[in-house]
Amino acid sequence: MNEPDFIAALRALPLHPGARGLMDDSAVIAFGTETLVITHDMMAEGTHFRADADMADVAWKLVATNLSDLAAKGAEPVGVLLGHMLGRDDARFIEGLRAALTAFDTPLLGGDTIAAAGARALGLTAIGRATHVPVPSRSGAQPGDGVWITGPVGRAMLGFEGSSEHRAAFDRPVPRLAEGRALAPLVSAMMDVSDGLLLDAFRMAEASGVTLALDLAAVPVADPAQFEKCIRWGDDYEVLFTAPPAAALPVAVHRIGTVAPRGPAPLLLGDTALADPASLGYRHG
Amino acid sequence: MNEPDFIAALRALPLHPGARGLMDDSAVIAFGTETLVITHDMMAEGTHFRADADMADVAWKLVATNLSDLAAKGAEPVGVLLGHMLGRDDARFIEGLRAALTAFDTPLLGGDTIAAAGARALGLTAIGRATHVPVPSRSGAQPGDGVWITGPVGRAMLGFEGSSEHRAAFDRPVPRLAEGRALAPLVSAMMDVSDGLLLDAFRMAEASGVTLALDLAAVPVADPAQFEKCIRWGDDYEVLFTAPPAAALPVAVHRIGTVAPRGPAPLLLGDTALADPASLGYRHG
Repeated sequence: MNEPDFIAALRALPLHPGARGLMDDSAVIAFGTETLVITHDMMAEGTHFRADADMADVAWKLVATNLSDLAAKGAEPVGVLLGHMLGRDDARFIEGLRAALTAFDTPLLGGDTIAAAGARALGLTAIGRATHVPVPSRSGAQPGDGVWITGPVGRAMLGFEGSSEHRAAFDRPVPRLAEGRALAPLVSAMMDVSDGLLLDAFRMAEASGVTLALDLAAVPVADPAQFEKCIRWGDDYEVLFTAPPAAALPVAVHRIGTVAPRGPAPLLLGDTALADPASLGYRHG
Repeated sequence: MNEPDFIAALRALPLHPGARGLMDDSAVIAFGTETLVITHDMMAEGTHFRADADMADVAWKLVATNLSDLAAKGAEPVGVLLGHMLGRDDARFIEGLRAALTAFDTPLLGGDTIAAAGARALGLTAIGRATHVPVPSRSGAQPGDGVWITGPVGRAMLGFEGSSEHRAAFDRPVPRLAEGRALAPLVSAMMDVSDGLLLDAFRMAEASGVTLALDLAAVPVADPAQFEKCIRWGDDYEVLFTAPPAAALPVAVHRIGTVAPRGPAPLLLGDTALADPASLGYRHG
C-alpha cells in the first residue's frame, strides 16, 4: 500500500476518540484531571537522514520533531520513549540525545533497543501535558480569523543546501514549545510547519473546512530570491495558527493571511486558488 | 555499541523518575489523579520476524507483546500508537492489527507511517491506566515470598518448531491482561516472561536483590521431554510474580519456587546456583 491508502485503512480500525480521526499531529487523551498529548514519529536512514549524517544531529532531530508536535498543542513535555536500532556512531547518537533532552528539559522514560540488519529506523514517542484545554487542533479555523506564523520559512532548506548560517536550522531545529504554550489559549487552530508552509496550510484549511487566503508578500522567508522554494520546503518547525483578528498575541508573530469561508479551493494565494496538494510540498531527503 | 553498552549509556541520560532506571518493562507516571503506564517495543524483519512471516501475525504480535508489558503492571490498555514502515502485505498487517485491537479492546491512538528501503522495522507504543497503585515492579520480591507463574512455558517454542497445536501460541500470543489486573494488588513483584523463564526470573532476582529458588519439578512446561528448552525459550508471555506465601490468589497459577535472601547467585535451581545470565536464555528468530 502507499501511505495515503495505509492511513485510510488505519482510519477504519477501532480509533480512540483522542486520535482525532488520525487527522492531527498528536493524540489528546483526558486522563483523570489532566489531559495527555502524545505523538510518535519515526526517522529512517536513506529517507529522513543520510547514511553519512552525524548521528548526534539525527538524535536531536528525532527529539525535536516530536516535541514540535507537542508545541503545536501547547503541551509541556513530560518525557520520551526511544525505539532504537543499534548501528554506527551510537555514542554520537547518545550525545545528541543528551543535548536535546537537556535543551528541552525533557527526561527519558524508556523504550526499546534492538539489533537488526539493513537501513536503520528510529522511533520516538513524546508525551506531554496539556497546558490549556481544549487542546488546539488543526480543525478550528473560523472565517474571519487571521493567519499567523511564528517565524520565517526556508531556513532549514538553506541549511540543507550548504548555508553555514542556516546549517543549525536543518540539523538541530528548535521546537516552538514556549510559543505554543503562550498561544494555545488564544488560537482557533494550530499546527507545526513540518512539511512546508503551503502543504501544511492546505491541511489546516482542509481539516477546518475553510479557505486560507494567504498574502504572499507578508510571508517571512529566509531568502526572498528563493521565495517559491521557501514556502514549499519543510523542516522549519515554525508554528502556523489562526486566531480572532483582535487577539492580543503574546509572542512576536507574522500575520500572513485571513481565514475565508470555504471557496473553490482550500488555499488562496493572492488570486490563485490551489486545490491540488500535490504541487504544494517540496520532496526532500 | 552493543545492547548492554547502549542501555548503560541511556541510563546516564536525564531519566524521568517513572523510568525506574530503565530496569523495568514499562514507565510509570503519576499524571493528575491517575497513573499512566507506558511501554514501547520494536520488531524488525530478520530479527523478530521472518521475511516470509504472515504480516497479520506480525501485527498481532506487535500489539500483544506491548500489551503484555501492561499486563505485568496490572494496567488496563488505553490505546496504542503505531510506527509503521510500509512494505509487503500491508493489507494483511491491517487485518492482524484489527484482530488484535478488537480482541484486546484497545483502540488506535495515532502514530507515524513512513516509506523506507531495507528491512522493515515496526514500533508500537502502548498506553495503559494503572488499576492498582503502587504499580508492581520487578524489584519488590521479598525473602519468604512464593514464586508463581500463570501458565506453562514452551508453548511458543513448540509452535515455532511446527506443532500445529501450539502454532497460535507463537504466532498470536495472548497477553495476560485479566490475570495481571487481578494479581496487581497482591504481588510483591511481577513481570512478563518474554525472554524465557530462567532469564526473566534471573532479572527479577537481580532487580529485587534476592535469590529466586525455583523448584524445577513444579514448573509447568508444554513438553516435559524438552524441559530444558522450555524453561529457556521466550515468547510465551505468561506472568511471573512473587507474593507472600499466604496470599489468596484470585486466578489459577502455579507455585514454582520461593524467594530467599540473596545468596551466591540470583538464581537457584534445586542445588545449582546460576550466576551467569548468558546461559539462561535461548536465542531465536
